[in-house]
Amino acid sequence: MKVSIIAIGDELLIGQVVDTNSGMIASMINPDGWEVESVRVVADDAEAIRRAISQAFEETDVVLTTGGLGPTKDDITKQVLCDYFGGEMIYDTEVEKNVLEVVTKRGFKINPLTAAQAWVPSSCTVIQNRVGTAPLMWFEKEGKVLVSMPGVPFETKEMFATEVFPRLKQKYDTTTVLTHATYIVINNTESAVAGKLDDYEKQLPPFLHLAYLPKPGVIRLRLTGRHSDRNVLAAAMSEQGAALKSILGSDIIADSDLTPAAILGNLLREQSLTIATAESCTGGNISHEITLVAGSSDYYAGSVVSYANDVKTKVLGVNIDDISNEGAVSETVVRQMAEGVAKVLGVDCAIATSGVAGPAGGTPDKPVGTVWMAVTLRGVTESRLCRFAGNRERVINHATTIAILEMIKMLIKQKKQ
Amino acid sequence: MKVSIIAIGDELLIGQVVDTNSGMIASMINPDGWEVESVRVVADDAEAIRRAISQAFEETDVVLTTGGLGPTKDDITKQVLCDYFGGEMIYDTEVEKNVLEVVTKRGFKINPLTAAQAWVPSSCTVIQNRVGTAPLMWFEKEGKVLVSMPGVPFETKEMFATEVFPRLKQKYDTTTVLTHATYIVINNTESAVAGKLDDYEKQLPPFLHLAYLPKPGVIRLRLTGRHSDRNVLAAAMSEQGAALKSILGSDIIADSDLTPAAILGNLLREQSLTIATAESCTGGNISHEITLVAGSSDYYAGSVVSYANDVKTKVLGVNIDDISNEGAVSETVVRQMAEGVAKVLGVDCAIATSGVAGPAGGTPDKPVGTVWMAVTLRGVTESRLCRFAGNRERVINHATTIAILEMIKMLIKQKKQ
Repeated sequence: MKVSIIAIGDELLIGQVVDTNSGMIASMINPDGWEVESVRVVADDAEAIRRAISQAFEETDVVLTTGGLGPTKDDITKQVLCDYFGGEMIYDTEVEKNVLEVVTKRGFKINPLTAAQAWVPSSCTVIQNRVGTAPLMWFEKEGKVLVSMPGVPFETKEMFATEVFPRLKQKYDTTTVLTHATYIVINNTESAVAGKLDDYEKQLPPFLHLAYLPKPGVIRLRLTGRHSDRNVLAAAMSEQGAALKSILGSDIIADSDLTPAAILGNLLREQSLTIATAESCTGGNISHEITLVAGSSDYYAGSVVSYANDVKTKVLGVNIDDISNEGAVSETVVRQMAEGVAKVLGVDCAIATSGVAGPAGGTPDKPVGTVWMAVTLRGVTESRLCRFAGNRERVINHATTIAILEMIKMLIKQKKQ
Repeated sequence: MKVSIIAIGDELLIGQVVDTNSGMIASMINPDGWEVESVRVVADDAEAIRRAISQAFEETDVVLTTGGLGPTKDDITKQVLCDYFGGEMIYDTEVEKNVLEVVTKRGFKINPLTAAQAWVPSSCTVIQNRVGTAPLMWFEKEGKVLVSMPGVPFETKEMFATEVFPRLKQKYDTTTVLTHATYIVINNTESAVAGKLDDYEKQLPPFLHLAYLPKPGVIRLRLTGRHSDRNVLAAAMSEQGAALKSILGSDIIADSDLTPAAILGNLLREQSLTIATAESCTGGNISHEITLVAGSSDYYAGSVVSYANDVKTKVLGVNIDDISNEGAVSETVVRQMAEGVAKVLGVDCAIATSGVAGPAGGTPDKPVGTVWMAVTLRGVTESRLCRFAGNRERVINHATTIAILEMIKMLIKQKKQ
């Protein structure tokens, strides 16, 4: 079963907000064999919304809209839907009751604008929004369904999972099963992986499909299967997954769509090790990535973000003369940072970074993008120099990933020995 | 002038990758009065791409596509464009030369798949990609233009800014000017702000438009103006901006679209103060937000991410009995963390957090989402208890923003005194 999504809001078309709802809906429906056919992003403009609805209904029988339902004047979706599906705007006292409950729970008072959420098109079935004030609206016309949902990601996710998708599944029986498997590959460019997999791709059964998703430092390989028989699909996915792993060997560091920080966490837990970080140019982002993983407190002690040189010497014990002679962005300093934080926080291994994130601070010797990183484990320290391209945010993100991958490689290497 | 965007790639429709290119293009063209009419996200599927192109050309004369140009088998955009605009695939030795240069600069060797990038439709004008291997392609048909660009955000940004947009501006003279101004409002719900601005919105001239963009802890108000006379527009924007500020007063903490961390940075720089953070549940994310701001090393000393209680006591000097008696997530501990990190890192002010990010670790007393935060400035410490809803990532992000806003409020308050 396929659905089209329409994301509504001026803010999405001027680069102020990114539409994350559509991807979230896709991840929720894919495991049940449902797919997103297309996403349209349109402004808070009656004509644009109407046209998007018409086009979307040409493609799929189910259309989901997100956003454009706020209490303020710029949100006009509700009126457009009323015009499109017919009927008139009516005051729904059940919605009023629900809005009052939600607002009160948040510790606010209701005001006339919030109360206006209770006006809904007479042609829809209301689904009460338990986690926000904008009611969800279910429209049907000639066997087709449109569901209008709020744009706040948290509300969309909660209400789509618990109310909207169960009703859609009840209405439309589906038989085709869709499965994805993701493999994380390191040490290779996209083309290099593709070269190694040339024969492999040719022998794939027609209902399996391989896609390449390169990211800084890693290539994600996604194997997608579509079949009416769940068992046939499962057998083929498992067989082809094993074949893929035997071709790429230890360059595959995970067989599910995990972040590098989550892969690191699994290795640490498996080997009963603890870790800390000492960050300069990455400014706490490695620590943030590690702690985004639920349960990371089992192995993560913490971080010293030593932005100022003072912190490097006083807290981490970096030699002040080495900073004067070699500079803060140097091999000797980053190794001392890694070893220092391991000692101060009393952990088994540590990651350290020191670099020039830019836009200022570059020199001919150490241009913007220069990053020294070190990893240490049971007394062994390794260091690496990288030069990253791009703006400040890109340098920080790239350095974060590569530093975590260096730690992963060291953990895998020492485990083998 | 309006453009339509088509983002191509299966990964965008299964929730694995979010389309950030479209918003980036919008931010680049808006200041010159160009607008994005709509965005379509479609799969690597010939029929879907063709349909999207036809529909987009019904809306606008300029269509930009991103993605679907990788060297691997799942990318079919180039062939679809060749079929759509006519002609045949030809081997372009200039592209081959460029690909060789780019690949060599990255320290890799060229392989047959990368070399295949040199095949391009005969109907297009090639724009060499200086920062990647997929060539950009410029098609014209009946006065309309389609430009095919790569999907890697860094490449799209660089090539669109330096090559594509300048050519589009040369081809299409535009006269309407489009301007945005953004105001950051705190201390209010969206409805409360809308209530205060009811009369204000009614008196706005028809070529100005106000939009509400709520985020955790802040409401962004965006005033958009569209006019053929640059001077008339500038005068109206300035007059209405001033009126907005006089209504909302000190609840407006910035009159441009800055992150809370950037606003904090401006206040610190203005008052010549230095800052540090001590983070438990936010795990380095406050530090990451602060250091994403270019030039933050002028006022930011660093952070101690004290995930383990050991780090709280040994590095930050938190009283071990207080942790045993009150728990790590408590007012007394978070205050000691803030004061401790200010002392250890030798700074004027500090932010600290300690909470339960979840999904595990909650208790009836301190459920998941409970966060204690403290801010300290020149010996005065203030603390606040929050309960955030949502998953781990949401709790971390929300706590990060609110903690930074608490520091901002304290800096504004002490400045006034």
